[in-house]
Amino acid sequence: MDVTLEDLGRLVGGKVTGDGKTVIRAVNGIREAGPGDITFLANTKYAPLLASTKASAVIVADGTSAPIPTLSVRNPDLAFGLVAQHLYGSARRPPAGVHPAAVVAPTAVLGKNVSIGAGTVVEDGASIGDNAVLYPQVYVGAEVSIGPDALLYPQVVVRERCRIGARVILHSGTVVGSDGFGYATDKGVHHKIPQVGIVVIEDDVELGANVAVDRARFGRTVIGRGTKIDNLVQIAHNVVLGQGCLLVSQAGIAGSTRVGNYVVMAGQAGLIGHLEVGDGAIITAQTGVTKDVPPGGVRSGSPALDRRTHLKELAALSKLPDALQEIRKLRQEIEELKKKSP
Amino acid sequence: MDVTLEDLGRLVGGKVTGDGKTVIRAVNGIREAGPGDITFLANTKYAPLLASTKASAVIVADGTSAPIPTLSVRNPDLAFGLVAQHLYGSARRPPAGVHPAAVVAPTAVLGKNVSIGAGTVVEDGASIGDNAVLYPQVYVGAEVSIGPDALLYPQVVVRERCRIGARVILHSGTVVGSDGFGYATDKGVHHKIPQVGIVVIEDDVELGANVAVDRARFGRTVIGRGTKIDNLVQIAHNVVLGQGCLLVSQAGIAGSTRVGNYVVMAGQAGLIGHLEVGDGAIITAQTGVTKDVPPGGVRSGSPALDRRTHLKELAALSKLPDALQEIRKLRQEIEELKKKSP
Amino acid sequence: MDVTLEDLGRLVGGKVTGDGKTVIRAVNGIREAGPGDITFLANTKYAPLLASTKASAVIVADGTSAPIPTLSVRNPDLAFGLVAQHLYGSARRPPAGVHPAAVVAPTAVLGKNVSIGAGTVVEDGASIGDNAVLYPQVYVGAEVSIGPDALLYPQVVVRERCRIGARVILHSGTVVGSDGFGYATDKGVHHKIPQVGIVVIEDDVELGANVAVDRARFGRTVIGRGTKIDNLVQIAHNVVLGQGCLLVSQAGIAGSTRVGNYVVMAGQAGLIGHLEVGDGAIITAQTGVTKDVPPGGVRSGSPALDRRTHLKELAALSKLPDALQEIRKLRQEIEELKKKSP
Repeated sequence: MDVTLEDLGRLVGGKVTGDGKTVIRAVNGIREAGPGDITFLANTKYAPLLASTKASAVIVADGTSAPIPTLSVRNPDLAFGLVAQHLYGSARRPPAGVHPAAVVAPTAVLGKNVSIGAGTVVEDGASIGDNAVLYPQVYVGAEVSIGPDALLYPQVVVRERCRIGARVILHSGTVVGSDGFGYATDKGVHHKIPQVGIVVIEDDVELGANVAVDRARFGRTVIGRGTKIDNLVQIAHNVVLGQGCLLVSQAGIAGSTRVGNYVVMAGQAGLIGHLEVGDGAIITAQTGVTKDVPPGGVRSGSPALDRRTHLKELAALSKLPDALQEIRKLRQEIEELKKKSP
Repeated sequence: MDVTLEDLGRLVGGKVTGDGKTVIRAVNGIREAGPGDITFLANTKYAPLLASTKASAVIVADGTSAPIPTLSVRNPDLAFGLVAQHLYGSARRPPAGVHPAAVVAPTAVLGKNVSIGAGTVVEDGASIGDNAVLYPQVYVGAEVSIGPDALLYPQVVVRERCRIGARVILHSGTVVGSDGFGYATDKGVHHKIPQVGIVVIEDDVELGANVAVDRARFGRTVIGRGTKIDNLVQIAHNVVLGQGCLLVSQAGIAGSTRVGNYVVMAGQAGLIGHLEVGDGAIITAQTGVTKDVPPGGVRSGSPALDRRTHLKELAALSKLPDALQEIRKLRQEIEELKKKSP
Repeated sequence: MDVTLEDLGRLVGGKVTGDGKTVIRAVNGIREAGPGDITFLANTKYAPLLASTKASAVIVADGTSAPIPTLSVRNPDLAFGLVAQHLYGSARRPPAGVHPAAVVAPTAVLGKNVSIGAGTVVEDGASIGDNAVLYPQVYVGAEVSIGPDALLYPQVVVRERCRIGARVILHSGTVVGSDGFGYATDKGVHHKIPQVGIVVIEDDVELGANVAVDRARFGRTVIGRGTKIDNLVQIAHNVVLGQGCLLVSQAGIAGSTRVGNYVVMAGQAGLIGHLEVGDGAIITAQTGVTKDVPPGGVRSGSPALDRRTHLKELAALSKLPDALQEIRKLRQEIEELKKKSP
């Protein structure tokens, strides 16, 4: 579809600078873009590349100038999303209906316009909401409920009785409802503690690929509304995650920890079990949190410290090799002084 | 099923305090419990919640008192497991038999009362022990042996020739027998080294979701009897894990490392290759072990140190910013003294 | 197959010491080997085991001697691979043809001698190269191209439009082409940014089990020719990895980072997004890289430092507890001197 930069300006409510009649056919990265492409500058680190980009236009944040036709907006990421959706439409949706090679229990309840792919298994008593898409090779356990407009990519597993909200997206290889890691050790034998709870994934959550979310020992493991989780993340049993959190790849949360709203965990960070992490806390990459975090707290290091304290310690550590030499010199000079002293 | 607190006391061999006729219908968390629920207190951190819990009764460790009817036991975790199993029975088991949408090679040997779900594939020469359950969409490679009463959840992969013991539980997304990571690099090309060994998973092992256990280059990768492994853990080729170990989520062990019995690795910890880790060693969260660990050794930090040494270093580091100031002051004062010194 | 040590010497171009007529039937580890086995010594750490091994012969590096018949070669790993392949042949290959329980779209294009297993789904417009093997339960999305001689183990997912090169090996549970983790946050809502790009996996790449490689926001996520990736690794959207890299288990690379050729990342290491890492760089285990790395740079620690700087800091830190005591003593002695000073 050909549209002009002016059309896109109207779409996203932004300001056009330069030739508004520039025709835009596709979106592309600032390095890879060619004629007919619109690119965007969300990270100012890449601003020098604007001089050499072959893109026909660029989306920038208000107040940034560029040497090519420019669409200025408040939030370039958001505008880019709208433009991409306008140019490409939504991703191709599999057709509605149940593939003949799917295996759907007679007692399962399917909403309107549901798509169920080849090899997908839906067990007894499960319910699938209107317009939900189950790609091929998905497993939906007994009495699971999947909300309307949910999207389950190939080879997702949702174990028995778990509840998936509306518009939830689950990527391939992700497992929801595996047993929590719980044993009662007695005389050298680890006896399995039954994990009789469920997982509740609220509306508008997205889980990346190969994520694991364990069912609760009893009660619920909860992923709050609008929280987004990246690939290979671990959520243990009885964790309660608030709304709007962002968990980056390979982060992990141990059992029964409760996380507030809009908490950010960067990559490979971990929270031990039975913690309380307040709203808006930020946990930086590879950080290992072992104590409660108050609302708005920022933590770094392993074991984690307040971010400022951690930076202060790192700065001090970088001076330590020289400081040790200085201590040796001070010792020598004091010994000199002591000799001279009456 | 309605039972009384007295009934449960007899079941677990514990002491009832308060009304033994209290009817118990379910187990639940201390926060979530309501009338008819029994909850439990394994972690004294949650003791203050006893004042406000709506549970009808609580399981506690001997010597702990509670303001509601109480069942005191030596091991609350163990008692909770027994109570949960009594109230809920074992999890619903899929029916015995081979689903018509499963694909089982004619040369595979199936024990009595085996359950094989839709879409599961069992290859040539595999053998499945009595009462084993293969949920839908499982893959069992050629000549694999699965022990009696084993439980393989949906989308488990066991590659050719690997051996799975009795009562083993493998959670969804877990892969047993993928090739080890081995290359011989020559003139800039990484030539694949054939991985011709297998994986042996001994009796009573449980592996969480999305775990990876690589087959040996030759010989066997071994997970010892009764060892329990959490989600997203990596076990490389030729690793030998002893009995009764506990490996928490996202831990990883590199190739050929040998781990003793009852070793604990906390979350996101790692062991490099070719190490020996003695019986009963403890590796704390996010720790990176680069040297052998003696029996009973406790390691923290990255690179790992003896736990006490690590704590001493951390305590010292927290004093370093002030110490650097003190060093500067000492320097000034010495310069003063030197000026005054004859 | 029985061969002699002399035969193997000719095969790998090595020098035989001791009885060249020794019959070799299998390869095995130095501890596990018995009569008729050849073992090998790639890591000199295991040299003491040569005294007690029951192997009939051993492969060693040129210049190493052994008390049993010996085959000396330039590269023992490489020679071992050739010997194993000679003795065992290539792993058993599934038969060519499309299994009746596979679901292949009529518009998919299959090369010669392709093997497609039970339960595997190949979507519209996909193309599968000559001699490629798709084990059971694989998912190949619409318009995906799979190169000749590629090998996809059970339960691999390749999402729509991604491109897999010749001789690529993808292990079970691995997901190629999941959506990148990208949101535009506006007024407390994380709006999904469409991920309209693809993943390109070049020739001779191998990905371990349960790996996740995200598709680009636009353009391509690229894994360069001959790069080898271990289990449970995360490759985020728009990452570009060069040729011949080695990424060990549980490593992770955040979005848009560009990595040169022959870079090594050890286990559990991480690179944040938008970095440039030069050719031949080495990132040690559990290291967290937050800044660009020049060609040949070696990084350790979290946050990462130049390896030598990091080692210097670690050495200094180990002396810090004593240094703090010394500082206290210096203070006392200075106070003494000040008292005495006129």
